[in-house]
Amino acid sequence: MKLVITKDYEEMSQVAVEYLLGEMNQNRKVNLCITAGKTPERIYEILAKKVQGRDFSNVHYYNFDESYPMNDDEYGVTMTELKKLYFDKASVNPENTHPLTMENYQTWDDYIDSIGRFDIIMMGLGSDGHFCANLPGTNCLHDLKTRLLSFDMPDNGTMQFATMGTQSVMASKHLLFIVNGEHKAEILKQVLVGPIDEECPSSVLKLHPNFTVIADEAAAKYLTK
Amino acid sequence: MKLVITKDYEEMSQVAVEYLLGEMNQNRKVNLCITAGKTPERIYEILAKKVQGRDFSNVHYYNFDESYPMNDDEYGVTMTELKKLYFDKASVNPENTHPLTMENYQTWDDYIDSIGRFDIIMMGLGSDGHFCANLPGTNCLHDLKTRLLSFDMPDNGTMQFATMGTQSVMASKHLLFIVNGEHKAEILKQVLVGPIDEECPSSVLKLHPNFTVIADEAAAKYLTK
Amino acid sequence: MKLVITKDYEEMSQVAVEYLLGEMNQNRKVNLCITAGKTPERIYEILAKKVQGRDFSNVHYYNFDESYPMNDDEYGVTMTELKKLYFDKASVNPENTHPLTMENYQTWDDYIDSIGRFDIIMMGLGSDGHFCANLPGTNCLHDLKTRLLSFDMPDNGTMQFATMGTQSVMASKHLLFIVNGEHKAEILKQVLVGPIDEECPSSVLKLHPNFTVIADEAAAKYLTK
Amino acid sequence: MKLVITKDYEEMSQVAVEYLLGEMNQNRKVNLCITAGKTPERIYEILAKKVQGRDFSNVHYYNFDESYPMNDDEYGVTMTELKKLYFDKASVNPENTHPLTMENYQTWDDYIDSIGRFDIIMMGLGSDGHFCANLPGTNCLHDLKTRLLSFDMPDNGTMQFATMGTQSVMASKHLLFIVNGEHKAEILKQVLVGPIDEECPSSVLKLHPNFTVIADEAAAKYLTK
Repeated sequence: MKLVITKDYEEMSQVAVEYLLGEMNQNRKVNLCITAGKTPERIYEILAKKVQGRDFSNVHYYNFDESYPMNDDEYGVTMTELKKLYFDKASVNPENTHPLTMENYQTWDDYIDSIGRFDIIMMGLGSDGHFCANLPGTNCLHDLKTRLLSFDMPDNGTMQFATMGTQSVMASKHLLFIVNGEHKAEILKQVLVGPIDEECPSSVLKLHPNFTVIADEAAAKYLTK
Repeated sequence: MKLVITKDYEEMSQVAVEYLLGEMNQNRKVNLCITAGKTPERIYEILAKKVQGRDFSNVHYYNFDESYPMNDDEYGVTMTELKKLYFDKASVNPENTHPLTMENYQTWDDYIDSIGRFDIIMMGLGSDGHFCANLPGTNCLHDLKTRLLSFDMPDNGTMQFATMGTQSVMASKHLLFIVNGEHKAEILKQVLVGPIDEECPSSVLKLHPNFTVIADEAAAKYLTK
Repeated sequence: MKLVITKDYEEMSQVAVEYLLGEMNQNRKVNLCITAGKTPERIYEILAKKVQGRDFSNVHYYNFDESYPMNDDEYGVTMTELKKLYFDKASVNPENTHPLTMENYQTWDDYIDSIGRFDIIMMGLGSDGHFCANLPGTNCLHDLKTRLLSFDMPDNGTMQFATMGTQSVMASKHLLFIVNGEHKAEILKQVLVGPIDEECPSSVLKLHPNFTVIADEAAAKYLTK
Repeated sequence: MKLVITKDYEEMSQVAVEYLLGEMNQNRKVNLCITAGKTPERIYEILAKKVQGRDFSNVHYYNFDESYPMNDDEYGVTMTELKKLYFDKASVNPENTHPLTMENYQTWDDYIDSIGRFDIIMMGLGSDGHFCANLPGTNCLHDLKTRLLSFDMPDNGTMQFATMGTQSVMASKHLLFIVNGEHKAEILKQVLVGPIDEECPSSVLKLHPNFTVIADEAAAKYLTK
């Protein structure tokens, strides 16, 4: 495990971009599995600017969880968000995006094996310790493959998610974890120095031989380097 | 995870030797962490013969668990056994063996980091699901580093073992698991397809991105390829 | 450069098989570009036996030079020979063989780039210093890509060969060079310690960062380790 | 070979920094062999700022050519320049700099082998096609190792240089070539598409399996992507 502590969110984003570009620049096909959400917003801003006018046709993109599309979107919720956050701004060729969907999740792990697995999977950390859609209570040390989960929503409806499981995530060549903000400090400490525990799903990630955590000082306040 | 099913113990041993030589032949320093015990006996016989008269000064050897030496042995129990099984027969230069001991276990993980980690760690599977000296009941998902364990022995004495922990083992570049015999069939199935469970310590190994299991047909009888 | 000196042809063949199996056993698609001819005969005998009944569907095979087919052969001269020497004995699925032909040589280099290049290219050494069909007098330091060559034959006819060029060969991840016999001793020395010279085409190979020479004692008699 | 054409010197420098940081961020010891001179000035400015306050104690630096020190400098000419351009600004620990000198050049190649070779060697292109101090007329396809060269200087004195040779440079894992300006356009074309020729020393570099050229549009004007 490598822990990089940055002074703030901006530097966390800059450093994460360094890791992504480090792979993207290689002279071979590169598979990146990336996260939507708030944490990576600045990363995608920086990255979209950096790749402008350059040839990254060797880079392919994947999502690690997905729900049904809303409205008339072609993609599901996550991929739609990634499209807005990054693909559109970076002029990513749609042929280079490979969506996990509610339909193909059962063959996803075999598919990822067949493409040679992910060079980087970049994930954020949920306040409850979740990674991808592996929340506490979802048996993430029992059901290890890409799977379908149902969650009760605040409005009493339910929402379904396809998500990569613990084993499918850990099969990636490099886990990149981005964490910022004081509200993540407690859970980050638990993840990195606590026991492997189903109720803190991300705690298992530190067993990966190539696990990099980029955290700002606020998120890292309970950690000693 | 890659599962190689061989027809018998002899072929299991031959294939394991292929993996070891595949690394040993590389034009760089190679770090191998290897197991003592009954399972690898034939592997070391074959390997000792193969390396005869050849230059493998680039290969360095390590053990992953150890107890106090018996009698006047210079090494502890495990290293003494490895010496008999392999080092002596293969004329390994003692400068290329790096023993984990009852004295240095607290700095072992940092040391392994500093040498660039293991290219291969080759382990057997205990009938109770243990790997290294991580037995059921030893909190192997809580205490993750190289550590000291005490076991009650049949004669009512206690024996102490230093052993690499779950996180230190998983930091290796390649986990090689060798399993043979029908008496291992049940536990091997539990390890490979069951949940991650502290009471079946080896179950966690399947989360490693480069995990190879070489099992003979007898041990693999409950597995489908 | 790594030089492995073996006591005889048999050991040269055994060691070469170790290198091939070291790649073939990896848990990913593996691309091997291999030579026909007399030198590798024993290698293929050993290898064909080793792979019997095992799953190597991840391994793909390529040739590096070719001439027109003779008689009614489906393949050209080289691939027909490889079929007899190895593919048939090892039950290699024809879908895993990817022939360079007299027709596709102009797109071959791009194709090899697109599959991620060769993990190993195994070549023999010609008595005149040639590698592939890059003979002295064929401008191998001027025409660097896969190309077509015409040779005058002893019976006054001409024979055409498609051959990978110096740059296409050197793009491989690992060059494996197998050499045996006292009649190769002079030229091997010239190749390994002499200047880069178009009249000794193989002399350029020693510039590759991952170049392994397996030579028996007879071929290595003018070399110091 | 990978060719990256950037719009100008600034972008060339930015992209080169991406390649360097891509290695430097890895969780292992990293060996960088870097060039002095005018071309990399902006690279070191950007890089020195990027690394400020971060821990890159895993990164070690090397030079590839050297002359005698001037005045009372502790280092030779090249290392003194690198110190000014980069090491001082980036607060590089002197223990992480490993100078090739006029004294140690004969053992340099073995030393570089022993440290596991360079992850990146970053070089500029001389207007006469030279790389390192391998100028036309220095027999760079005949004398392949790190060696001593004498040059006549404009003031009729002579200056001696230790320089890595063709084989020692090509043993690096990744060759990074930075080129800018229209005055380099002719020679760059000759280097990349011309024959391997001792009178254009850099022409041989394109035989490396991992060779990246970052050139601005001015330097690339005679190239087609």
